[in-house]
Amino acid sequence: VPTYRLDIAYEGTRFRGWSRQPGLRTVQGELEDALGRLCRGPVELTVAGRTDAGVHALGQVASFTVPSERRPPPTLLRALNSLTPPDLSVTAAGEVADDFDARRDARSRRYRYRIEARPIASPFESDRALHWPQELDRAALQRCAAALTGTHDFTAFTPTETTHVRFRRDVIEARFDEPEPGILHFEIEADAFMRNMVRVLVGTMLEVGSGRRRVEDFQALLAGRPRPEAGETAPAHGLYLLRVSYD
Amino acid sequence: VPTYRLDIAYEGTRFRGWSRQPGLRTVQGELEDALGRLCRGPVELTVAGRTDAGVHALGQVASFTVPSERRPPPTLLRALNSLTPPDLSVTAAGEVADDFDARRDARSRRYRYRIEARPIASPFESDRALHWPQELDRAALQRCAAALTGTHDFTAFTPTETTHVRFRRDVIEARFDEPEPGILHFEIEADAFMRNMVRVLVGTMLEVGSGRRRVEDFQALLAGRPRPEAGETAPAHGLYLLRVSYD
Repeated sequence: VPTYRLDIAYEGTRFRGWSRQPGLRTVQGELEDALGRLCRGPVELTVAGRTDAGVHALGQVASFTVPSERRPPPTLLRALNSLTPPDLSVTAAGEVADDFDARRDARSRRYRYRIEARPIASPFESDRALHWPQELDRAALQRCAAALTGTHDFTAFTPTETTHVRFRRDVIEARFDEPEPGILHFEIEADAFMRNMVRVLVGTMLEVGSGRRRVEDFQALLAGRPRPEAGETAPAHGLYLLRVSYD
Repeated sequence: VPTYRLDIAYEGTRFRGWSRQPGLRTVQGELEDALGRLCRGPVELTVAGRTDAGVHALGQVASFTVPSERRPPPTLLRALNSLTPPDLSVTAAGEVADDFDARRDARSRRYRYRIEARPIASPFESDRALHWPQELDRAALQRCAAALTGTHDFTAFTPTETTHVRFRRDVIEARFDEPEPGILHFEIEADAFMRNMVRVLVGTMLEVGSGRRRVEDFQALLAGRPRPEAGETAPAHGLYLLRVSYD
């Protein structure tokens, strides 16, 4: 019974997120339907990072086991991409160890949040970055990012009603870059993320960058504070799942 | 009676081209409607380069004259962008000489054609580049581009049924670049372009790059040959109007 790993990219605008929902267009739904046609039977995907509606992915990872004949991964890759819509691509496919599980075995996830920090919004960024026309203090943002590295209690950065039971996460790296003038990337890698965590972090850091909150106040939130003390949830369309790392 | 110049960018996917058409969503229609609301009366735009459905623009230029009180251009810019949809932005506005005409006064136009030359299509490029999974001979493409510089008869590169009366155009520059691996940009600047000209040039050069036509055959087409001797019209969604130059 072979197990496969798929690496997946999607433009999230027209998906209602990763998770299959009856009657809605989701990434899992589109992919499982394509796999079901190929394998002539139902296929269930395990995913490394469930993403919400509007969130993009460059390096999502999913795994599945299928009780059918082995398929050469290059054939599977080509066949899958011929069945998926233009806003969804399988970028790699491979056979892996029988017990591989894309979610359980992931050692870290890396996300990017893209901000268009200039007065006039580009029509090419409207679904792909948060437009922020006001001034932003880059140095203050960098100080926030620097404070994130290490282990913290992120209770303030996920909804109060939650299914999470552990609120500590290990942040391996967090930084702001400006790959071109006016395009800011916040990138963060951690062992795991809670629901909305990157988006609430960004919403709160943008208050610091706009002078409406002090860096010290942001730092204090990392010790486990109630959700209302943090800032707004930044919109989904700036968020990208960049990659998932395994041992 | 002041005359204004607008610099405009748009993501062409959801527009039926530049030119106003009753009942259809066009760039001219959206912009003239916004201007009409601001100026409280009909406004007619003159444009440097009419673009077809699906074609994008980074540096389109249009002009208009309006028999109303003068408006400071920064105010006009802000007000216009508050009325335009997310896939259309006015990037600059300025008052110009009374007799300025965005079409007549343009000295040259520069277009880019974007090709995603790799086996698997990125979901982020689906409306913004032509996906070309087959091999492409970069050197042969460069030889085609080099042959384009100078004055040629482009009869082969525009539909047979035409309103054009002159078929010679002066090409100032033409080149292929690969800004990142697998992303090819063909850029061409000329005094003016005929309908579909860049797209037929690209469609024909792609035959050369794929080994289905010789460079010498492409060169021979620049002496004024009938349309059927050239290749297919490349799709609209890879084409960008980059900029328009004035004296």
